[in-house]
Amino acid sequence: MFISFEGIDGSGKSTQARRLVAALQARGTQAVLTREPGGSEGAEEIRRLLVEGRGERWSPETELLLFTAARRDHVERLIRPTLERGAWVVTDRFADSSRVYQGLARAENRQLVEELHSLTIGIEPDRTFLIDIDPEISLVRGQSRGGAEDRFESLGIGFQKRLREGFLTLAREIPERIRVIDGHGTEDEVAIRILAAL
Amino acid sequence: MFISFEGIDGSGKSTQARRLVAALQARGTQAVLTREPGGSEGAEEIRRLLVEGRGERWSPETELLLFTAARRDHVERLIRPTLERGAWVVTDRFADSSRVYQGLARAENRQLVEELHSLTIGIEPDRTFLIDIDPEISLVRGQSRGGAEDRFESLGIGFQKRLREGFLTLAREIPERIRVIDGHGTEDEVAIRILAAL
Ligand SMILES: Nc1ncnc2c1ncn2[C@@H]1O[C@H](COP(=O)(O)OP(=O)(O)OP(=O)(O)O)[C@@H](O)[C@H]1O
Ligand SMILES: Nc1ncnc2c1ncn2[C@@H]1O[C@H](COP(=O)(O)OP(=O)(O)OP(=O)(O)O)[C@@H](O)[C@H]1O
Ligand SMILES: [Mg+2]
Ligand SMILES: [Mg+2]
Repeated sequence: MFISFEGIDGSGKSTQARRLVAALQARGTQAVLTREPGGSEGAEEIRRLLVEGRGERWSPETELLLFTAARRDHVERLIRPTLERGAWVVTDRFADSSRVYQGLARAENRQLVEELHSLTIGIEPDRTFLIDIDPEISLVRGQSRGGAEDRFESLGIGFQKRLREGFLTLAREIPERIRVIDGHGTEDEVAIRILAAL
Repeated sequence: MFISFEGIDGSGKSTQARRLVAALQARGTQAVLTREPGGSEGAEEIRRLLVEGRGERWSPETELLLFTAARRDHVERLIRPTLERGAWVVTDRFADSSRVYQGLARAENRQLVEELHSLTIGIEPDRTFLIDIDPEISLVRGQSRGGAEDRFESLGIGFQKRLREGFLTLAREIPERIRVIDGHGTEDEVAIRILAAL
């Protein structure tokens, strides 16, 4: 199984992806935790170009090409080989993040994301958990972390609200793959919702 | 005018691009010299990922996506603004290098290069000078330089021969844009051929 976690910044994706892998391993299922952008050696180097620096460092289209390059490397070097040896892959973000983040920047880019995806990536997760949360809450959670990877957070609460709507719209478009998980409450509460949905 | 120089490694592109810009400026024509991959701040950072490290560091497809990201940034931040203010742009490599280098790695990638180009780049030079040279000679010229950017040169003479054929095939396909320039002889001799063709 190939599983992805999606959601706005600070929604709890990394926390819950880690917990799901631990739960799977506790049941004796081989599972690999990974993340995007990054997840393979080359993709992590591309990640550095993407997450550091000013918000307007790259145009939406250049940013999308860099995300796609990182994703291609990640799929080739980690995701496919892991699935082929029979282990599960749990990834903290995948192509839906591009659909929502890069698709939001300009309306016509939503189509560009799909075209680049079908030309160069192809693969989709078997199941996606969209952790849905009020951006006001996720922003507070995010601020308590600090760090240099603040390019997206610096875009502000209004942007996070549009992201949330973007993710929910996508989940309505692809209900057979994307499950919306209520991200409010304690980590344990959210983890139980995810295991129940799985 | 937007002019590109193309050709195999060590064929004399950088030398002749520089000389052409000097000749244009001497005539009072505003001209900007640039290069690929790179040419803008972001693209130069992507360049570092591309030209350093082992030959198999990136798959042909990931490499193509990185080149396309760098080209998009270069076009947005340098080429278009320069042309819009009425100056000439002379670039040391452009999209034809992707057509030949990335298209050569796998036959089906030639099509992928075109699709990515039309989706995300669009623009073509008004005139392209393909400096054609025997790879044995260009390899010797290249070796005398040294340096860290040896990823392509390390691919060997057989690869350079296939590149040369790839460039010549492209020139036959697009004769209205691409002029083949004999790259043998002294720098002065080659420069005179280029000015005559222009
Ligand atoms: N249910 C929860 N209740 C309270 N805090 C939480 C909860 N889940 C996660 N957190 C904390 O909120 C912050 C953001 O969580 P996490 O890093 O998992 O989110 P994320 O979606 O991965 O964020 P980002 O998109 O920025 O990577 C972390 O400090 C984490 O410890
Ligand atoms: N006509 C010439 N005769 C002899 N040497 C030359 C000539 N033109 C260029 N050179 C030398 O050959 C080397 C390669 O030339 P140059 O750097 O211009 O090629 P290039 O096509 O830009 O190579 P690369 O693809 O590696 O960037 C340089 O050391 C340059 O000084
Ligand atoms: Mg996270
Ligand atoms: Mg050169």
